Amino acid sequence: MEKLVLIKVGGKIVEEEKTLHKLLEDFSAIKGYKILVHGGGRSATKMSERLGIESKMVDGRRITDKATLDVVTMVYAGLVNKNIVAGLQAKGVNALGLTGADMNVIKSARRPVKDIDYGFVGDVEKVDGQILCSLIKQGIVPVMAPLTHDKKGSMLNTNADTIAGEVAKALTPFFDVTLMFCFEKKGVLLDEHDDDSVIEKITPEIFADYVNQKIIQGGMIPKLENAFEAIEAGVKQVVITHASEINGNKGTVVVK
Amino acid sequence: MEKLVLIKVGGKIVEEEKTLHKLLEDFSAIKGYKILVHGGGRSATKMSERLGIESKMVDGRRITDKATLDVVTMVYAGLVNKNIVAGLQAKGVNALGLTGADMNVIKSARRPVKDIDYGFVGDVEKVDGQILCSLIKQGIVPVMAPLTHDKKGSMLNTNADTIAGEVAKALTPFFDVTLMFCFEKKGVLLDEHDDDSVIEKITPEIFADYVNQKIIQGGMIPKLENAFEAIEAGVKQVVITHASEINGNKGTVVVK
Repeated sequence: MEKLVLIKVGGKIVEEEKTLHKLLEDFSAIKGYKILVHGGGRSATKMSERLGIESKMVDGRRITDKATLDVVTMVYAGLVNKNIVAGLQAKGVNALGLTGADMNVIKSARRPVKDIDYGFVGDVEKVDGQILCSLIKQGIVPVMAPLTHDKKGSMLNTNADTIAGEVAKALTPFFDVTLMFCFEKKGVLLDEHDDDSVIEKITPEIFADYVNQKIIQGGMIPKLENAFEAIEAGVKQVVITHASEINGNKGTVVVK
Repeated sequence: MEKLVLIKVGGKIVEEEKTLHKLLEDFSAIKGYKILVHGGGRSATKMSERLGIESKMVDGRRITDKATLDVVTMVYAGLVNKNIVAGLQAKGVNALGLTGADMNVIKSARRPVKDIDYGFVGDVEKVDGQILCSLIKQGIVPVMAPLTHDKKGSMLNTNADTIAGEVAKALTPFFDVTLMFCFEKKGVLLDEHDDDSVIEKITPEIFADYVNQKIIQGGMIPKLENAFEAIEAGVKQVVITHASEINGNKGTVVVK
């Protein structure tokens, strides 16, 4: 099977001129089939502030009322996505910006209210790998914003790591998929104060052990859970690494 | 050749809940191949106000500095476009939101500075009719925001009527194209104070005559110039009508 690389980049990288520029260069240099999934949370928080809308977060997840949904739809699908698309087109990459609503690529269900009402937040139900595959084989490079829809007329705010994992899984029947989570650290760290303490390889056993010892905590836990789930579902390789290492071989490799 | 209908709707219709709802119903009911091109100027003006950015207009065209470009990119490609796309998906229409940057569908040149510096405003240079045709024949319904790009990394604010006209022309090799400009009036009026004084048919001669007599003025002049240009370039029919008449046969028909 042919290879495909799915790059997920966090907000911080795509929201600052300098790091975005470097990312677009590095991403353009990837040979073969590829997809970019981006965040945009910091810009959404800033825009909310400017509009006098309070940003409420629970465990790193944004409580998305109607006013906040409008902000994230504007910022993720508009500002951040189109800047990336225009930037890639300038480098000859045939980028196409997508949310889950476009061509019904990702359908979600609004998250049920249990202890917390997250509002217009989507849990992914179905990714249309077939249509993505067809676009990709036509030479198109999907650039995906962290938004889905409920197929009842509403957009839904959706975690970008989740989108990356679910899209990677949906493409396994068509490609040998490598999923790369790129951010501003060199990988999963043994010591969060030591940038060079990268764990080179992580298995479910090592992960469980590190979580128990509280070496791995916070937002890294769902990221790694996503990664293991992707591997279980047939994704060939998951790498967690620095954004500058898109074409390198450093970082943390997640294996069974 | 197979038929295609391109509907252009003004901002006022897509920006209000009630008229948007009706539009989505009417648009969904169109049989066969179709495209929607939308505006969003009122929402952009409102959002600019909320962000403390002054909206400067010259002859109905928005002066687009960098801050304004960010606003229109957010509002047109984000908020307005994705609400339409999600709304159409809910009705079973396989909508795909596009700006000119996506798949390089519309490349523009930044408008040269003569008397006025319009800023980040694009004059359309090339529409990729082939890729649009290929999407449409796959059952996809493009929903186009009034934004293009310069292929040098910048988005450009672009008049929605112009986009509608240029896309219609680019599709004439593939389809029998009907171009409908839909707005909140019943058509081109003989007397702007009489909503029922619709001119049923207009030719270049009648147009020139009415412009001389100042019966036709303001924003209707470039709209009709666009229409005649489209007809000259092979578009089968151009209709200017009320948004509720998408599936009807009322309004003003533009003929050679």
